[in-house]
Amino acid sequence: MPPPVTAVLDAGAAWLPARLGETERLLEDTAAGHGAALGADATATLNAGGKRLRPLLVLLCAGPGADAAAVRAAAAVELVHMATLVHDDVLDDAPLRRGRPTVVATSGRSGATATGDLLLSRAFGLLAAAGDADAVRLLSETSVALARGELAQRRDAFDLSLGRERYLERCRLKTARLFECACLIGRPRRPGAELLQRYGSLVGLAFQLLDDVLDVTGPPERTGKARGTDLLDGTVTLPLIEAAERDPELRSLDLAELDQAGAERACDRIAATGALESARGEALAMVAEAKGLLDDVDLDVEERRLLGLVADGVVERYS
Amino acid sequence: MPPPVTAVLDAGAAWLPARLGETERLLEDTAAGHGAALGADATATLNAGGKRLRPLLVLLCAGPGADAAAVRAAAAVELVHMATLVHDDVLDDAPLRRGRPTVVATSGRSGATATGDLLLSRAFGLLAAAGDADAVRLLSETSVALARGELAQRRDAFDLSLGRERYLERCRLKTARLFECACLIGRPRRPGAELLQRYGSLVGLAFQLLDDVLDVTGPPERTGKARGTDLLDGTVTLPLIEAAERDPELRSLDLAELDQAGAERACDRIAATGALESARGEALAMVAEAKGLLDDVDLDVEERRLLGLVADGVVERYS
Repeated sequence: MPPPVTAVLDAGAAWLPARLGETERLLEDTAAGHGAALGADATATLNAGGKRLRPLLVLLCAGPGADAAAVRAAAAVELVHMATLVHDDVLDDAPLRRGRPTVVATSGRSGATATGDLLLSRAFGLLAAAGDADAVRLLSETSVALARGELAQRRDAFDLSLGRERYLERCRLKTARLFECACLIGRPRRPGAELLQRYGSLVGLAFQLLDDVLDVTGPPERTGKARGTDLLDGTVTLPLIEAAERDPELRSLDLAELDQAGAERACDRIAATGALESARGEALAMVAEAKGLLDDVDLDVEERRLLGLVADGVVERYS
Repeated sequence: MPPPVTAVLDAGAAWLPARLGETERLLEDTAAGHGAALGADATATLNAGGKRLRPLLVLLCAGPGADAAAVRAAAAVELVHMATLVHDDVLDDAPLRRGRPTVVATSGRSGATATGDLLLSRAFGLLAAAGDADAVRLLSETSVALARGELAQRRDAFDLSLGRERYLERCRLKTARLFECACLIGRPRRPGAELLQRYGSLVGLAFQLLDDVLDVTGPPERTGKARGTDLLDGTVTLPLIEAAERDPELRSLDLAELDQAGAERACDRIAATGALESARGEALAMVAEAKGLLDDVDLDVEERRLLGLVADGVVERYS
């Protein structure tokens, strides 16, 4: 289990492990079946790991009263996340994710496209079984936002002239919206839902910013990928945007021409500008703001503490 | 408007044109927005036409009492159909569909993958707004069946040893299940739903069989594609399966080696065996069986007549 989940489980909320376990079993049941080939690919996607941060948020926002509907929502949110990853890997023709072969690597583009469609469709089916039409609509809108965010990232690729606003908007679409959705969907119509939504948005944004910092800092043995992978993909992230404001040579960097050695040199140059500390600082401020919002939500001490631990866990993963 | 829809509209069900118009407007509203790029691609997909056979079935099975929920269901079923087409075109790298450039041709693989995900997600959102969780679950299961069917078609490609049972199972998954879903979703919990589901399944199967016959017969000016396109794609359909049982030379046909001229020659050989009449005959028997089932459903004369016209329209398109 990765740090945020471990920290929360160690904190000893007696009801949580059971609900997380049920979510995992529901994910397994949902991935299985559907014919041998598709079921195997969907199951492999599930077993490839993942932090299960989004289901954790759903359950924590549902609170100790988290019921079968919350478990279904938790699984549905994770399925949408997985579907996005599987389709992204098709577009990137990515051989590995989290150190394991991707679906596109093992089953080809058609297998992976179908697996993504399966995971997406099953997410909505699961959620509908919980009987909450508002939740299905919310997940639908969120899923569209994810698609828009991924598309924006690809359309904006290799364009260093795009500034931080565009970057942040993209992060909101491709990452923060699903965190928001997790919080809202876990707490439908309960007081404070809007504040929890905002909490989710900030935690999601911080998560993405720190992920983008980590791409520059490595080390590869920890991140499971080479330093500067984003640069090689042409993905312009906040560390590069901020560094280019400070270092004219980075402004003239041609991402399309980079090789691995060039990407690592660019990472060093970015680090030398202090842009990483700056981006990390922004992320920490978001996490602090997110935790501050919790004070105004009607939560008991334990619920507030656990949601605070998740926010901290997002940072700790990178410290 | 294509034959089945025209025939039904000509038949003068006064309530139907208004509901079909509402479905079309709902499809337009659903495709628009979502950012300029995605919205434009989704709208283009919609405007590229299509027979709207599936929405027609939803509305006819709902009957003269078809309400806003039925219109939403009609649009949702069409959106799932469109999502499948867009993703298929990505996998095939298809330049044209229905004589217009595909999304993958105009916006690349990433744009088309995102557009398909958008259409799929919005389908479930629309349906949830109609407030029927059973309908969302049904559409989810159906969407998974479509993904399985498409995958099966790709996995089975170029393999002439696969027989008719496997072919029919694939047609059920990739085509008939969505027709079934259209009928069921239009008539939830009304008496006779199972019979209408079976009617939909048979009409869908007949539709696919006749489509596969048309690929062999052409003519291209009518179908909008060259004869033998399935053969060139390696898709083994009933006409070829039946023809190969009658003509040993077709049994040793190497689909992977075919060029356009070879595909047309193979089409002529298939036609010479009488396999086309045989496949067409099977489709006609399915349509007759489908129409026969309607006698046992509690429908008024007008409803039964219109559903009969749809079934006939599927055949007429090919006569």
